[in-house]
Amino acid sequence: MSDEQRSAVTNLFAAIPAEIPTEIFQVLLETDNFRLERIVSAGQATPSGEWYDQDTHEWVVLLRGSACLRFEHEPDRVLGPGDHLLIPAHRRHRVEWTDPTQPTVWLALHYHDARRHPGNDDS
Amino acid sequence: MSDEQRSAVTNLFAAIPAEIPTEIFQVLLETDNFRLERIVSAGQATPSGEWYDQDTHEWVVLLRGSACLRFEHEPDRVLGPGDHLLIPAHRRHRVEWTDPTQPTVWLALHYHDARRHPGNDDS
Repeated sequence: MSDEQRSAVTNLFAAIPAEIPTEIFQVLLETDNFRLERIVSAGQATPSGEWYDQDTHEWVVLLRGSACLRFEHEPDRVLGPGDHLLIPAHRRHRVEWTDPTQPTVWLALHYHDARRHPGNDDS
Repeated sequence: MSDEQRSAVTNLFAAIPAEIPTEIFQVLLETDNFRLERIVSAGQATPSGEWYDQDTHEWVVLLRGSACLRFEHEPDRVLGPGDHLLIPAHRRHRVEWTDPTQPTVWLALHYHDARRHPGNDDS
């Protein structure tokens, strides 16, 4: 690709269809080590009784809308714009609900290596 | 670290001081392969006549405020909330200005490997 193409400006809140029958997953950037995705939800939730159990770590930030995230055996976490958290690999979780009144826009960074995570004790 | 600590929710728009004499760089996540940072600017710009020339690729998204990014020999790019772009390694660039009236909040993902970049032609 040319440098010109690579530095094109795109907007995370653009290109959101009026109807979103299923969640939209769009890869923004991918290398051997990570995948950065935009996710757009519109009221979807994880099917009843199901849990995500992922092989990769996932850092996620909610940028627009709202959602409720549940980890097994823990209180629900309601997320609003700017809220971010790390979901370690194999930590069972599910999305209880996403905002039914507007699209919810997330960024998700999936990766393998969790060598360092500032602000926490790695011991 | 415990899983509990890792999944604490933090907000990208929180913990912004009232006075920001110099830009704030905060590492949110770091591995051998990438570094994810929150940057808060408050009217700062790259010093006159200086250019950034980085060894790593940088994907950047502006989330709040506004800024003007300049690449050498190209028209300025004015960025608003949600605007994102990839700055390839060694592509000379500078920040012409950031919003003087409110904090400008960015996310920056610095990484080495640019193996794939969907939507562009890698040939």
